[in-house]
Amino acid sequence: MLIQIEPEGKKVACHPDLSILEALQKKDFDIIATICGGEGTCGKCKVRIISGTVSEPAEQELQTLSAAEIDNNIRLACQAFPRESLSLNIIASSSSAQYKTSLSMELSGIAVKPNVKKVFLQPQPPSLADQRADVERIFEELHNKGIVASDIAARLLPCLPQLLRQADWEITTTLIDERIIAIEGGDTTGDNYGIAFDLGTTTVAAYLVDLNNGELLGQSAITNGQSSFGEDVMTRIDRAHGGDLGKLQKAAIRSMNFLLDRLTDETGVQPENIYEAVVVGNTCMHHLLLGIDPYTAGIAPFTPAINISPDIPATLLGLEIAPEGTVHLPPVISGFVGADTVGDVLALDFDIKQQPHLMIDIGTNAEMALSVKGEILACSAAAGPAFEGARINCGMRAAPGAIDRAVIKNNTFQCHTIDNKPARGIAGSGLVSVAAALKREGRMNRRGALKQKNIPAEMLDKENRGIILAPADRTKSGEPLILTWRDIGEELVIAKAAIRTGVEILLKEAGLDLQDLERISIAGAFGNFLNIDDAMEIGLLPDIAREKISGVGNAAGKGAVQILLSIDERQRARRLPKNIRYIELSGYPGFNRLFSGNMKL
Amino acid sequence: MLIQIEPEGKKVACHPDLSILEALQKKDFDIIATICGGEGTCGKCKVRIISGTVSEPAEQELQTLSAAEIDNNIRLACQAFPRESLSLNIIASSSSAQYKTSLSMELSGIAVKPNVKKVFLQPQPPSLADQRADVERIFEELHNKGIVASDIAARLLPCLPQLLRQADWEITTTLIDERIIAIEGGDTTGDNYGIAFDLGTTTVAAYLVDLNNGELLGQSAITNGQSSFGEDVMTRIDRAHGGDLGKLQKAAIRSMNFLLDRLTDETGVQPENIYEAVVVGNTCMHHLLLGIDPYTAGIAPFTPAINISPDIPATLLGLEIAPEGTVHLPPVISGFVGADTVGDVLALDFDIKQQPHLMIDIGTNAEMALSVKGEILACSAAAGPAFEGARINCGMRAAPGAIDRAVIKNNTFQCHTIDNKPARGIAGSGLVSVAAALKREGRMNRRGALKQKNIPAEMLDKENRGIILAPADRTKSGEPLILTWRDIGEELVIAKAAIRTGVEILLKEAGLDLQDLERISIAGAFGNFLNIDDAMEIGLLPDIAREKISGVGNAAGKGAVQILLSIDERQRARRLPKNIRYIELSGYPGFNRLFSGNMKL
Repeated sequence: MLIQIEPEGKKVACHPDLSILEALQKKDFDIIATICGGEGTCGKCKVRIISGTVSEPAEQELQTLSAAEIDNNIRLACQAFPRESLSLNIIASSSSAQYKTSLSMELSGIAVKPNVKKVFLQPQPPSLADQRADVERIFEELHNKGIVASDIAARLLPCLPQLLRQADWEITTTLIDERIIAIEGGDTTGDNYGIAFDLGTTTVAAYLVDLNNGELLGQSAITNGQSSFGEDVMTRIDRAHGGDLGKLQKAAIRSMNFLLDRLTDETGVQPENIYEAVVVGNTCMHHLLLGIDPYTAGIAPFTPAINISPDIPATLLGLEIAPEGTVHLPPVISGFVGADTVGDVLALDFDIKQQPHLMIDIGTNAEMALSVKGEILACSAAAGPAFEGARINCGMRAAPGAIDRAVIKNNTFQCHTIDNKPARGIAGSGLVSVAAALKREGRMNRRGALKQKNIPAEMLDKENRGIILAPADRTKSGEPLILTWRDIGEELVIAKAAIRTGVEILLKEAGLDLQDLERISIAGAFGNFLNIDDAMEIGLLPDIAREKISGVGNAAGKGAVQILLSIDERQRARRLPKNIRYIELSGYPGFNRLFSGNMKL
Repeated sequence: MLIQIEPEGKKVACHPDLSILEALQKKDFDIIATICGGEGTCGKCKVRIISGTVSEPAEQELQTLSAAEIDNNIRLACQAFPRESLSLNIIASSSSAQYKTSLSMELSGIAVKPNVKKVFLQPQPPSLADQRADVERIFEELHNKGIVASDIAARLLPCLPQLLRQADWEITTTLIDERIIAIEGGDTTGDNYGIAFDLGTTTVAAYLVDLNNGELLGQSAITNGQSSFGEDVMTRIDRAHGGDLGKLQKAAIRSMNFLLDRLTDETGVQPENIYEAVVVGNTCMHHLLLGIDPYTAGIAPFTPAINISPDIPATLLGLEIAPEGTVHLPPVISGFVGADTVGDVLALDFDIKQQPHLMIDIGTNAEMALSVKGEILACSAAAGPAFEGARINCGMRAAPGAIDRAVIKNNTFQCHTIDNKPARGIAGSGLVSVAAALKREGRMNRRGALKQKNIPAEMLDKENRGIILAPADRTKSGEPLILTWRDIGEELVIAKAAIRTGVEILLKEAGLDLQDLERISIAGAFGNFLNIDDAMEIGLLPDIAREKISGVGNAAGKGAVQILLSIDERQRARRLPKNIRYIELSGYPGFNRLFSGNMKL
């Protein structure tokens, strides 16, 4: 049995016991940007059946899909099972095949001083007058070049005699610290690569860099494969503790290997020439990657299992870089402030610059840090995944075709999409922009409830699910894009309240007023597209001088790249936790009152 | 199909495509002490078929077995294939089930200071006032006890949170250097074990020791499973280079795991409480264990691939000790002088005592070392496996029932057997003793040829294969034990010539006369049983003052145990190669002339 994907004509084997989604993912993990992971709740995996019989619509499909969609043979790939060979379209807003990261990276200013060193050697071949061992020749030749080597990976030894002789005693050794981790024939010193990962709850981003010159060769991102185990950190913790730890670990690594594969394909870099990986992520992601049950981080007293900064053999994790390559994990701070925040504050020089500077990294959780007088305060707020497109009816990440800004003109939305592509969905920045537009026009109250009497009929969905962002003729899928009442009144209001409450508590702890802040940096892909005025309009950002606020892109990923490129940066990252004071919001006096007060737009 | 082994009644599954030997070895690797490894040449795997049909006698069996043996349904297990279910006896001299090592070990005088440290800890459980990470608590608790820990094995991290809580925050950490390699619940500091292996070409010996007090808990030995790939080092090198490297590596590790299993069974020690192994062996064994093709050591200019002293993760080799345990390999000196010789000279304090002292370690190769004026000279002679029982008609190792001494009285041999058991075969020391007796009585010329006219008929085998050592009614198997003309005239003469030539060249290089030697130590199991007068009689040992010569048992194994028990001893071993000057016999001027001159008894 085969599924043929139109219009590309690509064919995928399928089986009656596998959902269409499972069959497609076996072929290409990233083919559909599912978020709920096959639970039938996110509605992101819509396909249109062109020919062939599938199972009857499941309960979840009847709830998630409109009658019109079902009439048009539109189905959720995660809920529909093939009965015979099929042909289908992937509904455009679901496809992540064209998904591009929109993470800005400014790497200049980092002095390249990597942990990985490659050295070309020409040791003398043996003779009866010189019976030194092969490995002795290598160590002595390194010594002659002033390089200290004290160890060699056991895995290299079996190949050594043949390799040296086949390469005619011209080899390149790769060292991490004083340990030889690779030996290649000839001069391969030019091929020295590293990869940095930002392992987010919803999105995994990867950056492939040339360790010889610090050049960023490629970047890419996909949905974290763990998403199928739940959208937020607490659900993942529950699933891990309930017996799915191994699956969650494997899912993260599969996502990382997928990106590795894509980036090496795109750049022609050989995976065995990638000798080191650096991974930042929140504490839960960090623990899951290591196969550690993160439950202690999720229940009081919220302690992580480890906060050291280990170098893990890549083979132990199954990361498909050089066999003796290592995976470096910068330290985590607490149960809810992880190595991603370490990456953020490193990239933003919080340990160097002393001005009052607030960083908000908006992902599934929002981590915040405040630099003040040589100390760094940090906290984490459960903003939910609204800004990454999850739990929002037509939500998607900031990718081509995503609505990132909107205004209301002539009683309809005029939406701008990323790269000016036909609309596929709405990004987090678009959600903020839509809410701001509705509020400015008096069509929404402060609780986020739409004032229906102020909304013209042409803006309303006929089935009263919500308001029409883009009519069917202006979307990629040919279906209208609809924002529901709940999207704004619940998801957005909660996300905003969580973030503002965190900001207020940090300021209070630091003894600062809003006006004392010299800078606010919005980290994460979200920050690049966010319209600052819109964010101020709905109170997501505090009302301070506009020029103090800027989006800084994926600062956590940038921090990871810095740590990859320079051992000095790595030392800075190692020292950071000592200067970071973690504020536990859940136990903070008056938290609930502050949060309720912020439940408004 | 089954093979039933009588009289025990043990049953083993068999298959027409597997020889009887292969079927038996699948059940119990050590059940038959085969040496040639199934080539049909060593004649050690005799079985008597009681019932059931087997394949017709093969060419090798017709050459190796007597007509009487074949008439009595005696067969070589390696050449005979079952046609149906069988019952059989294993001929006693073939069985190694009762094989005991006869290695003497005197461990007193070694200050116990192992590389492995176990520390009981009671870290504080976390609270909201103390949100330190689990691993931080462990490191700080170690620090409080004055113990430096800088790393923890990544493999331990996944289990850490549960383990700490299940153990109620009472744990024992195991450290190698500054790295935590195991964490166990409760106080397990009493369970700290190590194992030393002497990986010989023919025999693998193992010593299980308590790292808390240096006590030797058990020792055992078996035939090296690699023997099936050839008896001597050069054959193994050929086989490894020809494509059997992986099989040879696995065979060595299987033999080691077999001993590990036997010793842990005997002592009740848990394999996961064995944290370190030390392995000595000649350069070929050392390389094969690491999976390194040893061919460069076997051809000019005879260079080893590695001479470093690595610590290899046990899991990388598949040695079944603690999962994060390590295998330490002391250094090798040259292509033909290995870590076993390092063990020898360490155990004999060659680096400390300056008297002219000669060590001869007689195994399949004979390694020799001479300590003189602060320098150590070493060489290796291809003695062949005669002294270990291989290639000798009724040869066996020094084990209960082995003839270890003989005199001629009333025209018959009066043989002494180890532990006074009924004779099963002849050990190397017995071979020397028999030759000496024949020579003393003028029944053998200096070339090792028997003077038939001086030998009474009752001493001669009726089929003229050789002389009768023990008649049928005095042996365990009920078959007479016969020493062939070839056993003495070829195997013994060559072995003696190789060793004496090595001794002479070492003395010449050192500028010493025989009489300058203050001590000669005979290392190896052989040395314990060797009658010094007999060895002098046939010229195997030089004619010097009798009291200067002594057997010192398995000095290589003792050296390995010293290295296991004490990091100071390990440092001594690391420094030794610098003081050892290797003499390459094959290229030595006049070697062939010297060797020919020594081809006499």
